[in-house]
Amino acid sequence: MTGTGIRKGGRSRVANPLNASLKKQDSYSAPPGSDHSVGWIRPQRVLLADEGNPLPLDCGTSIAPVTVEFETYGRLAPLKDNAVFILHALSGDAHAAGWDADWKKDNRPWRNGKPGWWDGMIGPGKAIDTEEYFVVCANLLGSCYGTTGPWETNPQTGIPYGLDFPVITVEDWVRLQVRLQDYLGIDKLLAVIGGSLGGQQALAWAMHYPDRINSAVIIAAAARLGAQGLAFNAVGRQAILNDPCFRGGQYYGGQPPTGGLEVARMLGHITYLSPESMEGKFGRSFQNGTQPCYRLNKEFSVESYLEHQGRSFVRRFDANSYLYLTRAMDYYDAAASGGGNLAAACASVKARLLLIAYTSDWLYPSGATREVAEALLANNKPVSFLEVPSGCGHDAFLLETAQTGPIIESFLKRRD
Amino acid sequence: MTGTGIRKGGRSRVANPLNASLKKQDSYSAPPGSDHSVGWIRPQRVLLADEGNPLPLDCGTSIAPVTVEFETYGRLAPLKDNAVFILHALSGDAHAAGWDADWKKDNRPWRNGKPGWWDGMIGPGKAIDTEEYFVVCANLLGSCYGTTGPWETNPQTGIPYGLDFPVITVEDWVRLQVRLQDYLGIDKLLAVIGGSLGGQQALAWAMHYPDRINSAVIIAAAARLGAQGLAFNAVGRQAILNDPCFRGGQYYGGQPPTGGLEVARMLGHITYLSPESMEGKFGRSFQNGTQPCYRLNKEFSVESYLEHQGRSFVRRFDANSYLYLTRAMDYYDAAASGGGNLAAACASVKARLLLIAYTSDWLYPSGATREVAEALLANNKPVSFLEVPSGCGHDAFLLETAQTGPIIESFLKRRD
Repeated sequence: MTGTGIRKGGRSRVANPLNASLKKQDSYSAPPGSDHSVGWIRPQRVLLADEGNPLPLDCGTSIAPVTVEFETYGRLAPLKDNAVFILHALSGDAHAAGWDADWKKDNRPWRNGKPGWWDGMIGPGKAIDTEEYFVVCANLLGSCYGTTGPWETNPQTGIPYGLDFPVITVEDWVRLQVRLQDYLGIDKLLAVIGGSLGGQQALAWAMHYPDRINSAVIIAAAARLGAQGLAFNAVGRQAILNDPCFRGGQYYGGQPPTGGLEVARMLGHITYLSPESMEGKFGRSFQNGTQPCYRLNKEFSVESYLEHQGRSFVRRFDANSYLYLTRAMDYYDAAASGGGNLAAACASVKARLLLIAYTSDWLYPSGATREVAEALLANNKPVSFLEVPSGCGHDAFLLETAQTGPIIESFLKRRD
Repeated sequence: MTGTGIRKGGRSRVANPLNASLKKQDSYSAPPGSDHSVGWIRPQRVLLADEGNPLPLDCGTSIAPVTVEFETYGRLAPLKDNAVFILHALSGDAHAAGWDADWKKDNRPWRNGKPGWWDGMIGPGKAIDTEEYFVVCANLLGSCYGTTGPWETNPQTGIPYGLDFPVITVEDWVRLQVRLQDYLGIDKLLAVIGGSLGGQQALAWAMHYPDRINSAVIIAAAARLGAQGLAFNAVGRQAILNDPCFRGGQYYGGQPPTGGLEVARMLGHITYLSPESMEGKFGRSFQNGTQPCYRLNKEFSVESYLEHQGRSFVRRFDANSYLYLTRAMDYYDAAASGGGNLAAACASVKARLLLIAYTSDWLYPSGATREVAEALLANNKPVSFLEVPSGCGHDAFLLETAQTGPIIESFLKRRD
């Protein structure tokens, strides 16, 4: 099932969502083939909504066509009982593991020849063992990495959606992922696994599609974003909206609002690191030497680091997608289906759940993850909650694979 | 001495530092005259550096001319032993108390007819009692509120300084304040008092001018900003620098970079509030009604609040000043004069010190204030450290006057 039998997306108007002037970056391209890599991977694309069967959205409208880009690793078992969906976060893509065989293609400027974003976790003999499981990762609706998003042509206008793209939610994403599940012919997933915004998708799966999954792993996520998190997202979006290049979202083919997106990413990055990890990594060290140069920028190491993060991000991400994905993050509230009562919302859950939080995460603090665990326990649901000591902040969900890998591995091996 | 005998600044080229198109805002203008107000106040301006006596700066250059705007409240005692300098923070000005008699003048668009920024603390019978003390507050070098700054004409070019303005430091500010002290004929100040960046000025006074002050009150400040604080400042500045209207800092007379400055202020504001105060004030409430409207902005109350903060700030503050003042905040490191050893740097201190920190301040966490107190104690200096329980975050230094006022009052009354 890894690549064969998948109907390729029937659409040909996949434009480069990023500025055409951007150059494919040089990057290392070590050969795959290690015993612990899934090797070369080709992304797949499939049409999952068309005019006859549009995807309904929480905002009250629907969207069609919708093409989804996804990758698969491992083989689907004859009983189709070994499928694991990996759910990515804000800036992730379908390329979770292995090496992208198509990364040099011109229409994929976001790929760089590096291993997938969770390659430390997914592969033969790894925690999410591709010798055991059929692993699927799909790019989110509204993103800029192959799945339909604001950069794509709006069939009603003939130009890119831009801000005509509908506002989307975490629940919309899951609704689309269920279509992918159906398309793959899988009645019930062995597990859904995600960190951050991916963890909220996993929780939404458990609440709204209780019969379609056996288990869910929710990492560095919570029932909702707090007011401070909403505020940070609002500032990032304002930076994009204030950029004169934004031009109401219709910047495709011209100069994109890279200045605003750079600022949004720099800010986001601060929230992904813990204060102590920033202090340990950079402290107040100067970029050059030990004495101040007395200038307004490029003085402290932490400034150069953030600027680098911002500049590399604008080469691979679309500003409109940033607006839509952060907005979905804002809207998610797991308690909504319980009329504001999280425990009531958890009543529908049938899956086994594993919740993992990190001590230094201040975007989704561990207490907020624990709140979900407690709401599930109040319903006598089978839930494990693990608070992992880590100084890495929110980014721990990507970095602390050595600590969390074995726990996820044994959680997946349980069969009950 | 309140206004009489002060030589007015001898310069006539005081331009409006803010965009000429900005309108003076309507605002409440309740009459002064309450028993606890210092009443109508006229700001004063004085030339404190000229070509024959320029102000030397830490960056290695010097600057002249320098005009300083300041206000005074109360009367200087015959022995000149009752003077208190109030040191303002990033967005403050000389107008610390009372009502600005000149606020409707066209060249003062930042004034709005409201009482001074620390009016709750300064006045007859208040904690900093103007019946007892001669209180002085001067606008900082580089700011946009009357004292020389990047908006002023550079005598060497005939156009506004813009980015030709020299990079300034907290120590430069204090060096200029000492000139004001000399100008006022005061050998020794009874006290210097400041919060946030003002607290760092107070600490610099104590370390570098030990014989010129009797005591110092340092509120919500620390020996230095941490890496995360540096990072937030860097993002704010990047938002300004990325704004196409910034034009290398030479935007005076044209459209100023309000979009970038708005974003910088929104971000700064998040760091001034605690997560719990944002949660309590706004939570996840919608701006209108109880159901989501599914839009990309103006949905959550916290967004509208921040946007309002940003928009009102750009009407009263100059983007270049924001760059320079945040940079001074970055550079300040109290340990520098001790070769990186804070205790060694504290050896020079002679003043009595009162340090106040707030439990929910995460920009200058109370532990960082305590570190200064411990370094002073290691030198057997007379220091009191007070950690005030407050949910208001860093802004507590402006808000919690009821808690800290009596403590400052009794600290000032001690004579030893």
